[in-house]
Amino acid sequence: MHDPTSRPLVALTMGDVAGIGPEVIVRGWLDPRLHALARPIVIGDPGVLERALKLVGDGGAIRIQVVAAPEEAVPFPSTIPCLPAGVAHEDLTDVQPGAVDARAGRAAFAFLTTAIDLALARRIDAITTLPLNKQALHQAGVRQPGHTEILAERCGVADHAMMLYIGPPVGAGDAGLGVLHVTLHVALRRVFGLITEESVEAKIHLADRAFRPLTGGRPPRVAVAALNPHAGEGGLFGDEEIRIIAPAIARAQADDIDVVGPIAADTLFGRAIGGEFDVVIAMYHDQGHVALKTIGFDRAVNITLGLPIVRTSVAHGTAYDIAWRGKAETASLIEAVRVAARIVAGRTLEGTSILG
Amino acid sequence: MHDPTSRPLVALTMGDVAGIGPEVIVRGWLDPRLHALARPIVIGDPGVLERALKLVGDGGAIRIQVVAAPEEAVPFPSTIPCLPAGVAHEDLTDVQPGAVDARAGRAAFAFLTTAIDLALARRIDAITTLPLNKQALHQAGVRQPGHTEILAERCGVADHAMMLYIGPPVGAGDAGLGVLHVTLHVALRRVFGLITEESVEAKIHLADRAFRPLTGGRPPRVAVAALNPHAGEGGLFGDEEIRIIAPAIARAQADDIDVVGPIAADTLFGRAIGGEFDVVIAMYHDQGHVALKTIGFDRAVNITLGLPIVRTSVAHGTAYDIAWRGKAETASLIEAVRVAARIVAGRTLEGTSILG
Repeated sequence: MHDPTSRPLVALTMGDVAGIGPEVIVRGWLDPRLHALARPIVIGDPGVLERALKLVGDGGAIRIQVVAAPEEAVPFPSTIPCLPAGVAHEDLTDVQPGAVDARAGRAAFAFLTTAIDLALARRIDAITTLPLNKQALHQAGVRQPGHTEILAERCGVADHAMMLYIGPPVGAGDAGLGVLHVTLHVALRRVFGLITEESVEAKIHLADRAFRPLTGGRPPRVAVAALNPHAGEGGLFGDEEIRIIAPAIARAQADDIDVVGPIAADTLFGRAIGGEFDVVIAMYHDQGHVALKTIGFDRAVNITLGLPIVRTSVAHGTAYDIAWRGKAETASLIEAVRVAARIVAGRTLEGTSILG
Repeated sequence: MHDPTSRPLVALTMGDVAGIGPEVIVRGWLDPRLHALARPIVIGDPGVLERALKLVGDGGAIRIQVVAAPEEAVPFPSTIPCLPAGVAHEDLTDVQPGAVDARAGRAAFAFLTTAIDLALARRIDAITTLPLNKQALHQAGVRQPGHTEILAERCGVADHAMMLYIGPPVGAGDAGLGVLHVTLHVALRRVFGLITEESVEAKIHLADRAFRPLTGGRPPRVAVAALNPHAGEGGLFGDEEIRIIAPAIARAQADDIDVVGPIAADTLFGRAIGGEFDVVIAMYHDQGHVALKTIGFDRAVNITLGLPIVRTSVAHGTAYDIAWRGKAETASLIEAVRVAARIVAGRTLEGTSILG
């Protein structure tokens, strides 16, 4: 019964069950594109999935296949294989929609770590994650603030980055546009201590290396955003551009990387969207996220670069305000699975790798 | 010879003559929309204007009318009235294109202050400024970092703000979308000391009051951006939202202002562009500028709120890299004059005022 095509086996981790993740999975399952792109399986809670099916009102057309291993999964448009995350399996029956709940945080952590271990063991081809709630994760006693940090630690990599990505026709040609962040899930006032010549240079190198599955092997054109308004206006509005960012770029250029900057953020993103660059290095979370989500919120996806496994994510959050009300959209899930499948295919190209 | 229509008398200040300002003025003069929107006059250097005419190659169709007072100006598509800025008039003959020059900085300051004084005296209806270079201004010994600060000081107002603005069809209905900044031309690391409950609340009040000429008197719907990623994620990534921004919003709400927030910046701008809000309060320069310039760089304009005079500006900079090469675009100038004319008209509506 294994699929005869080359569609990759992509695990969808359910994320925080108080959010829109379970509904997005079920709605996505009803979209034929999901099945054309991948063989999806769910890593999550079968009882919650059952509730999401009732919410969406599939009319009994879809059944859940509870599996103990990904090899048992037989995904069909009419069958959702669901692998319960064993170790920390929680009773999630009375988790309230839209409320922070430590049990949901613990479960989301278990779904994710189960998926990571399966991907590291090459028993699944890629992971596409639904959102978790960072407060619930925190209340569950998880040290890491979010997906990216959990993935990096469990995969044992130090040199990694979350890349926000929008596919064609944004950007030039077929490659789309990626934004790599030097800092991510930290208070804005902590950013300054984390932007160093080394951290900026490392992200440039990572972009150059890890974006190639999306350019078909061509070295990506990288641009680095400034930290301060007007790129510091020659030192008048901050000197991080002069002290830190420009020297990091010069070092990467000396290593023959196609990289320019620092460029004032408010002009850089327009140029990149128009196709001048493949990857932008952003200094902090909102710098990259405001640009990409403003132009194409529903099509943006996250990709973790530098891992030995393929991981993409929807770019939206748990959306507690509309959770379990039948209002969730699936465009970002479809895009996230599309990009995961594309990276899996791209990694097999000679000379390209998403490996850190 | 005075124009019989109600078109306002709008002074275009030439800005930094090493940049694209002079060329933008001349190219704009060739656009019939400029003359349909306003009676424009230039405050700047006639010799530089002559050079810009030669660059653009108008074929001798346009002549420059040097005037000593705005009342003498007789603007036509074929006549550019130019008022030289007297006091600090500089010899600008050998200012090099694209090079920071203290003389250009001093001249830009003189053009601007002349225009401000004429507007305060009600001898012109509005000012639309071309860009100046902040380094040249600094080298010229001007204390203020940019246009906004010079305007505020010369007009004697403390409670003012630079608003980046895009007109319809962005936003809802006819009002367009404005972004007010709590902090502007400062290094990012200085932002934290400037964001206080008082400064945020003052900007909310200013937005509520000063945006009404653009909504036709209707109270604008205001949304306040968060400072930290994910709006601080409940305090995990910074507590300014809890300590400062939320209390400021609550106080403004108690004063019956239609305001919500703090909302994570990466979702807020998409909602505002879709028409959910009229004005966004941004915490720092790039937060607002990245969003608006990314979606519509060439149509964005600046408006200074809180002044007793009407001032708009192109949203682009001096563009030294393309200055005096015949490549400058005029879309932002036309928009800036359109918005100035609209505010002049809107101020006459009962109960509305751009006055601080």
